[in-house]
Amino acid sequence: MRIADMNWMQVEQAIARDGRAVVPVGSTEQHGYLSLAVDAILAERVACEAAEPLGVPVFPVLAYGITPYFRRYPGTVSLRLDTYQRLVADILDSLAGAGFARILFVNGHGGNIPGGSILQEWMNGHPGVTVKWHNWWNAPRTAAAVQAIDPEGSHASWMENFPWTRLPGVEVPDGRKPMIDVARMRLMDAAAVRAYLGDGNFGGAYRKPDAQMMEMWRVGVEETRDALEGPWA
Amino acid sequence: MRIADMNWMQVEQAIARDGRAVVPVGSTEQHGYLSLAVDAILAERVACEAAEPLGVPVFPVLAYGITPYFRRYPGTVSLRLDTYQRLVADILDSLAGAGFARILFVNGHGGNIPGGSILQEWMNGHPGVTVKWHNWWNAPRTAAAVQAIDPEGSHASWMENFPWTRLPGVEVPDGRKPMIDVARMRLMDAAAVRAYLGDGNFGGAYRKPDAQMMEMWRVGVEETRDALEGPWA
Amino acid sequence: MRIADMNWMQVEQAIARDGRAVVPVGSTEQHGYLSLAVDAILAERVACEAAEPLGVPVFPVLAYGITPYFRRYPGTVSLRLDTYQRLVADILDSLAGAGFARILFVNGHGGNIPGGSILQEWMNGHPGVTVKWHNWWNAPRTAAAVQAIDPEGSHASWMENFPWTRLPGVEVPDGRKPMIDVARMRLMDAAAVRAYLGDGNFGGAYRKPDAQMMEMWRVGVEETRDALEGPWA
Amino acid sequence: MRIADMNWMQVEQAIARDGRAVVPVGSTEQHGYLSLAVDAILAERVACEAAEPLGVPVFPVLAYGITPYFRRYPGTVSLRLDTYQRLVADILDSLAGAGFARILFVNGHGGNIPGGSILQEWMNGHPGVTVKWHNWWNAPRTAAAVQAIDPEGSHASWMENFPWTRLPGVEVPDGRKPMIDVARMRLMDAAAVRAYLGDGNFGGAYRKPDAQMMEMWRVGVEETRDALEGPWA
Amino acid sequence: MRIADMNWMQVEQAIARDGRAVVPVGSTEQHGYLSLAVDAILAERVACEAAEPLGVPVFPVLAYGITPYFRRYPGTVSLRLDTYQRLVADILDSLAGAGFARILFVNGHGGNIPGGSILQEWMNGHPGVTVKWHNWWNAPRTAAAVQAIDPEGSHASWMENFPWTRLPGVEVPDGRKPMIDVARMRLMDAAAVRAYLGDGNFGGAYRKPDAQMMEMWRVGVEETRDALEGPWA
Amino acid sequence: MRIADMNWMQVEQAIARDGRAVVPVGSTEQHGYLSLAVDAILAERVACEAAEPLGVPVFPVLAYGITPYFRRYPGTVSLRLDTYQRLVADILDSLAGAGFARILFVNGHGGNIPGGSILQEWMNGHPGVTVKWHNWWNAPRTAAAVQAIDPEGSHASWMENFPWTRLPGVEVPDGRKPMIDVARMRLMDAAAVRAYLGDGNFGGAYRKPDAQMMEMWRVGVEETRDALEGPWA
Repeated sequence: MRIADMNWMQVEQAIARDGRAVVPVGSTEQHGYLSLAVDAILAERVACEAAEPLGVPVFPVLAYGITPYFRRYPGTVSLRLDTYQRLVADILDSLAGAGFARILFVNGHGGNIPGGSILQEWMNGHPGVTVKWHNWWNAPRTAAAVQAIDPEGSHASWMENFPWTRLPGVEVPDGRKPMIDVARMRLMDAAAVRAYLGDGNFGGAYRKPDAQMMEMWRVGVEETRDALEGPWA
Repeated sequence: MRIADMNWMQVEQAIARDGRAVVPVGSTEQHGYLSLAVDAILAERVACEAAEPLGVPVFPVLAYGITPYFRRYPGTVSLRLDTYQRLVADILDSLAGAGFARILFVNGHGGNIPGGSILQEWMNGHPGVTVKWHNWWNAPRTAAAVQAIDPEGSHASWMENFPWTRLPGVEVPDGRKPMIDVARMRLMDAAAVRAYLGDGNFGGAYRKPDAQMMEMWRVGVEETRDALEGPWA
Repeated sequence: MRIADMNWMQVEQAIARDGRAVVPVGSTEQHGYLSLAVDAILAERVACEAAEPLGVPVFPVLAYGITPYFRRYPGTVSLRLDTYQRLVADILDSLAGAGFARILFVNGHGGNIPGGSILQEWMNGHPGVTVKWHNWWNAPRTAAAVQAIDPEGSHASWMENFPWTRLPGVEVPDGRKPMIDVARMRLMDAAAVRAYLGDGNFGGAYRKPDAQMMEMWRVGVEETRDALEGPWA
Repeated sequence: MRIADMNWMQVEQAIARDGRAVVPVGSTEQHGYLSLAVDAILAERVACEAAEPLGVPVFPVLAYGITPYFRRYPGTVSLRLDTYQRLVADILDSLAGAGFARILFVNGHGGNIPGGSILQEWMNGHPGVTVKWHNWWNAPRTAAAVQAIDPEGSHASWMENFPWTRLPGVEVPDGRKPMIDVARMRLMDAAAVRAYLGDGNFGGAYRKPDAQMMEMWRVGVEETRDALEGPWA
Repeated sequence: MRIADMNWMQVEQAIARDGRAVVPVGSTEQHGYLSLAVDAILAERVACEAAEPLGVPVFPVLAYGITPYFRRYPGTVSLRLDTYQRLVADILDSLAGAGFARILFVNGHGGNIPGGSILQEWMNGHPGVTVKWHNWWNAPRTAAAVQAIDPEGSHASWMENFPWTRLPGVEVPDGRKPMIDVARMRLMDAAAVRAYLGDGNFGGAYRKPDAQMMEMWRVGVEETRDALEGPWA
Repeated sequence: MRIADMNWMQVEQAIARDGRAVVPVGSTEQHGYLSLAVDAILAERVACEAAEPLGVPVFPVLAYGITPYFRRYPGTVSLRLDTYQRLVADILDSLAGAGFARILFVNGHGGNIPGGSILQEWMNGHPGVTVKWHNWWNAPRTAAAVQAIDPEGSHASWMENFPWTRLPGVEVPDGRKPMIDVARMRLMDAAAVRAYLGDGNFGGAYRKPDAQMMEMWRVGVEETRDALEGPWA
């Protein structure tokens, strides 16, 4: 249930029933021909679909993430790692203060992962509150579902091209793009990254039939729901 | 135009035509019987409607703001002032780096105002980029439109009760609540604030006819659009 | 009573009698033809005169504030917002640690206001201590007293021209300066601000007869004293 | 060549010949029956052996890392993520200022990985300097060499038990420990981690014959040397 | 010349003639029977008397310093070291931006000395601006003048008892206090420090004849003036 | 006993016997013809020799310190003061958390001294833990031993030229270098410092017979051991 669809009295009741909460986190950054909001859209949607049957509140997606390598692609916003960690800690402080005891971050962007590394530091100072970080797109079963469709899937390729992330009136190329070398890209500054990546796709086909996309999505939702079910240590 | 409905190539073209951008900022906090996301919903919506005819990109709303006084109302998230300023600065750095030269923050929450106070500090370090902070709900004409409907309007009262912020199945009280004393509330910690405010409304009627709400909204959208039109110093 | 006129034994006795304290905060910044220390002089003086009959200790004025827009006027010192908030928090930590339970900041500079916005965050962490922020010059009765003299009064104009802020041997202009547009000024960096403001006065006459100034001052002192008397929530 | 075995004139000559440098980073933390300095010892040693034939300077190991989960094991030191990132940035600023243009971090501790995530942010501000982060123990060929010996190897097990990390007079257990569940451990605070892990080994045998250890080491040194050789984007 | 006695036009002229400025820094902290403002009073006064014949502007004293050991003495305010360094850097940024090229900090409190240690870091980033830190009371000639009067002089003893730091109506004890052991005090927290120090004097006589005080003062002023004269590297 | 030669069980036993620990801190910076690691080598070695007979654990040396003035000498690494203080605080938090109650920093570099100034602030927040900062090379008896050999000894001169800090194959000059003026150097930025210092020695002879060095060393070890013995307030 989305926090935006609740008032505080309803949240208070939800906590009394069940101390779980979900915080989806995304990024606003280049995704080739796709929406700049892909990571936020997917993280929030997978979180909501996963939490719905459990009645667990889903907080508004944090739409901005850590993505310094894409700073030369207009429309991208990159938060400093330091800023991001403070954000995550502030959000946790508020949720723990409200009585949430089991908090799941549903992350849609690889660059945010170091932000999740403050969780253990934070938990040391907040006994009784457990926080879990879930990278929905590369959790084991979801990653396997992607591989089953096509071993070559990547940032801004078909694997992020859903009915809710593609743009009306924007055609994606037909063919496949050769896979880029991520290890090499890690050595580049943002200007070199843009020169290297061109349209922004990291490689692979630009689209797959929706039936395949829906199957992958179903696995992603279920695996995220399972993360919410437990174990909680 | 929402950034979520654009890809980076489209943003690059938009910047080439017009260096303006809008960043709506809200809060996730108690709003009495209304949605916890009132401030984010209104800021993003007023920003989008204002920007639409001008073709100016609107970034995703920053859903979290500064609201320490409401921390005892479950569902509220409060960022530290320090965190918030870093966020604002990081967003500006990215937008300026992309070539945006006239950036409008459309703010929906009073507690965020100190965050806006870093803009002049930031502009000193970024000549050629102008940033404007617009509190949409208390800009002169919008505030006058509120007064014209009822001089008693406040946080979580009728003036925030729109078709898009009220919750299905939740009835708001019929009567009027006496106005609270905001100066006294400023002296309270979060526990005392909750004891003082009760349901969270700061006073006044809980709802008005939609025709009146739509008229107020129209003024708010136009005044926000005017802020986007200029002057830009 | 000024802290500078007390030793620690006397402060300990004062706290045992009455847990109140005053911290005046000002700025060192251009004030046109007037002293660069106007805001510090006025804040400290109004605080001392207000506190005197109550026997409440007044801490030394914090002479430096937040004033990025005036950085191109020599003699101006601007603290970063972040620095200022840490300062305010550190001062509060020391005062609360000593047993002060009701602390009044008497502020003489508009730019410092965001610094005051950390007070509620701070109070959440310090139950039992109440902190109040008082902008002496624009408190309701003082602002009305200014308006009664001349509706056009502003930064560095007559309303800051007291016997204790004007400089010996420096003549101020005779006439009136047209009011500047503060909203436009907020969009300028420090270089543009100086080009726009010229001598630094924001508009209005440069001086008024001392009898009028004394009357306004009396109101300012009384209203500050009333803030110190209560309510304290 | 170790910086400790050089003076500044020699470093100046080294930079003139070749702009590469190595910075080993480790951790001081529980390693079961083994030395608390395992990660620092291995990172520094593998770095020195890798760099020796290339004549590239190796800076002193940063002996302290990020390890909040082990804080209940005496002798462990954990730096905050924020502190760690500042450290890495300061070291890079000094090295870049001296003229090093290709800098390799050789990391010996998984918990430090988020510290490496500031590298791209840092490179954006320092064009012309390339920084690479190398986790020596889980680089592909080294990880394969570990697997070839025994698929069950982990923190504080045989795979960290070298002649230079075991302690004289300390016997390690003979048998195998069942593998712990790292995903579950991520949900625990430091007290729960200690209760869960017991002696600190994450699972597997406690020792292997030195011949096997030397073979694995040889691969680790070569793969680290290859990282230093290139590519550098 | 005090900045408080100047307007910005006069400071601009002063910079055109001579790029020097003085910033006195003190502390608000227990000084036994003497004023809590001793360190601020003395630093500002010695700075003003030293600068007067040279026509160099003296900024308002920074009345708050670093004094964690005295936090249990009411009336004491201690800034965190981190806060203090930011303060010093912000002040320097403003002064350098205004064109001051030779800036003298005149310090009246030992605890502030680490704050001065950021000067070299700051100068590396601001070529052409030289900053000097002067501890007026223990500069060589002033320290010798103190020794010549009585080798036992200390914090809050006779050596800080001037006509402008003693309090009307407060008698100081007649005798001598045994010297405290500063090295031991450094190992104590604030509660232990208060228990150890009692009245706050670090040892020695509580007062000396004014003729001796004036002679010491004269040396302090001259030595501070000499620091302002040069060398400036 | 070096922490590197212990496992966590052994440290736990050591704490049960005796709550003391030693943390040596050095610097990586130019030392003329000598090793860039002089300060780290000496601090760690003097700490280990001092602690050995007492059975007190010695943590790994912090090899990086605060040395902005030497940043133009290649091989030097300077941490920001702010970074350094966080480091010291993090290390203390871990050691106190493990049960160490008497912690001795053995410092080998003058530039680190301001880092030690956070100790009292830290102790205020950690009652029951005492932290002592020991500058081994200028403690009274060691400084006297230096003076007894030659009153002219300085950074990078004979007084740092030990068998374990000199470099094989590097000849030091025969003569004496005139003493530099440290007060003047404090006014220089890093580029000017290098121009002024040349080879990096601050003045005096470049070497002394080893018998003299060993005698000085013996005093340094004993005085460091005495600091570890007490008093602890």
